[in-house]
This record gives sequence, structure tokens and C-alpha cells, in this order.
Amino acid sequence: MVRDLVIGMSDGLTVPFALAAGLTGAVAASKLIVTAGMAEIAAGSIAMGLGGYLAARGDAEHYAAEKKREQEEIVEKPHAERAEVAAVFRHYGLDEAQIEPILENFEKNEHAWVDFMMRFELGLEKPDPARGTISALTIGGAYVAGGLVPLAPYLFVADARAALPWSVVSTLLALLAFGYAKGRVSSGRPVRSALHTALIGGLAAAAAFGIARLIS
Amino acid sequence: MVRDLVIGMSDGLTVPFALAAGLTGAVAASKLIVTAGMAEIAAGSIAMGLGGYLAARGDAEHYAAEKKREQEEIVEKPHAERAEVAAVFRHYGLDEAQIEPILENFEKNEHAWVDFMMRFELGLEKPDPARGTISALTIGGAYVAGGLVPLAPYLFVADARAALPWSVVSTLLALLAFGYAKGRVSSGRPVRSALHTALIGGLAAAAAFGIARLIS
Repeated sequence: MVRDLVIGMSDGLTVPFALAAGLTGAVAASKLIVTAGMAEIAAGSIAMGLGGYLAARGDAEHYAAEKKREQEEIVEKPHAERAEVAAVFRHYGLDEAQIEPILENFEKNEHAWVDFMMRFELGLEKPDPARGTISALTIGGAYVAGGLVPLAPYLFVADARAALPWSVVSTLLALLAFGYAKGRVSSGRPVRSALHTALIGGLAAAAAFGIARLIS
Repeated sequence: MVRDLVIGMSDGLTVPFALAAGLTGAVAASKLIVTAGMAEIAAGSIAMGLGGYLAARGDAEHYAAEKKREQEEIVEKPHAERAEVAAVFRHYGLDEAQIEPILENFEKNEHAWVDFMMRFELGLEKPDPARGTISALTIGGAYVAGGLVPLAPYLFVADARAALPWSVVSTLLALLAFGYAKGRVSSGRPVRSALHTALIGGLAAAAAFGIARLIS
């Protein structure tokens, strides 16, 4: 959930901001920039939101398919599966005498055996069935909320060049605040995260500005 | 690597396509759409590429910090760490007599103990140190490559409304081909993946088109 919020918000703040700033290098009317920006927000939020939904559904299907395969293999090829469990523990320095009781335990408890293989051999965790929908709404909503920050000044100031400074200042403040909050939650280094996030937005906007200038 | 390619390519094909289609509902000159599209590609590839770089670096730092913490805890609070290992195995149905030799083995081999805690308690895998740079270049490059597909027709046809059908056809074909390839690699259901990918692109473009029409 936090990860989805971060994905949607960071791209939502950055790409519409960079597009608006870039177009300000090429066109004078705010209205056109609002049109392009709103089209971008619609496209970006849907593409990323649905992408997140399908990714979550894909994870759930992958988990279910792998679980079915493990369940079948435990019945059909118990020796190979025993060898796989033993390999996991041998890797951690256990000898055969220590591994044997673990194998016996799993043979009596196939449910635990399958669970163990899913987590420790394949590194898969059981996905939450509701995650796809929540993920789509979180990413898409965060993208829209983020994207409206850089566009708002263009809604109120008709001359794009006059709107740009307001857009730059409000978006940089939003990027710093968002980066700070992200850093507090994830890395514990909020100031560095704030500067990184603002730097990405600034670089993307500068590149978009330069390219739009170059073409027009 | 495949995951990064998929992220960059799917957004690169979808968002610039939807933006170009959306703007075609509002402006007649291809040149302006090329300007907006190129600005979007620059912004999107940099934002997503740098985002991928920082995400990979964040993962690496998170892993290093957690590993340091586990190493310290094994020295400072060995009883609590023993209890955590025991809890993992109890969950899989092992009894105390089976767990004891495992704990003794880990006490003789702290390196294996830390590795075990990283993987099985925290579910973390050691990240590749070069991944950040590779990830940034893969995502950014795929975004640019994907984004040029929908824009190419606007480079050659001056009237945007005449360029749109070419853009729609070439992008839908590219989305179908990309979705098919993605499905073959990941889910083993390539046709469904092709249709899903094309559907996301189509929905995003339709929404962008509708919003741009509404505003202008």
C-alpha cells in the first residue's frame, strides 16, 4: 500500500510537472498546457493503475500455479522434493542426521511441506486477493493527486510563462515534502530522500523543457 | 531485468500514445503533438529510470542495514534470535527435539545464521550491487523505445488527424506483440496478456482523448 502510494505519487508529481514545464518552453497559452497535462494525468493514472491491478493479479495467479505444481510434485516425486528440502538446510550447514527428522515431519504434514517450499524454495509469499483493486485505486488516485499540483497554477494564470514559476515552486515543495515522508517511512534518511525526489523531478523537467525548446 | 523492461516498455507504449491521441482531439498540428510527446518521453524515461535506480539502491541499503542489525542481535540477544529461529520451524510442525540441533548448528556458524534470518525471517534476498544502473538504463531505454512508436506517424504526417490512425494501428500492434511476449515469459498465457496490454493502452488513450476534447 505504501509502495503503491509512492509509485503513483512520485510519477504523478514528476511527469505532468515536467510535461507542463517543457511545453511552457514551446507554447504561450496555459489552456493548451492544461489540456496536455490533464490528458497525461488521465493516461498515466489509468496506465499505471491498471498496470498495478494486472501485476497484482499476475502475482496471485503465479502463486496459485506454483502451489499446485508443488502439491503435485510432493505426491508424484517425493524423492526429488525431499532432496530439495535437504538442499535448503545443507546450505545452512545442517548435516544429514539433523535434516532427517525435518524430512520425516514434512512427510507427515503435506500442507506444511507445500508452505515451506513456497516460501523457502521459491521465495513466494501468499498474495492478498483484494490487493489488485486496492493497488489500482491507490496508484491511480495518487497519480491524479500528484499531477494536479503542477497543473493548478496553469488553471488560474492564462499566460503559461507567468504560471511556470508558481508551478515550479509548488511542485518542488510537494516533491520535497513527499520525499521527506517517503524517507521517514522507508530508509530512515528523510532529508536525503527529499533531495533525491526533488532532484529527479528537476532533472525530468529540465530535460523535457530542453527537448520541447529544441523542437519548437 | 525482464521486469524492468516490462515496466519501461508498457508505460512507454501507453502514456505517450494516449497523450498524442488525446491531444489530437484538441489540436490540429502534428508539430505540437510531437513537442508534447517528446517532452513526455524525456520526462517519463528520466523519472522512471532514476526512480528505478533509487529503488534498487534503497533495496541494497535496506538489506545492508537489516543484515547489520541481525549480526548485532545474534551477538547481543542470542536467546531472542534462537527463539525466532525456533518459531520459524515450529510453524512448520517441528518439535523442540528436532529444532535443538538446528539451533546448535547456527550457534557454531554465525554467518549461516545471519543468512538464514535474512531470507527466512525477513524474506530479503541479497541484491546485486550493479542492479541500480542496469535497472535505470533498462527502464529508461525501454520507455524511449516504446514512446517513439506512437509518435513516429506524427513526425511524417503534418496533419494530426491524419496521423492518428497510423499511430493507433502501429501502437496497438506493438502493444499486442509486447503483451504476447510478456505473457509467454511470465504467465504462460500469451494471448490473454496481449489483449490485456492492448486494452490498457486503449482505455488510457480513450480517457485522454475524452478529457482533452472536453477541455478544448
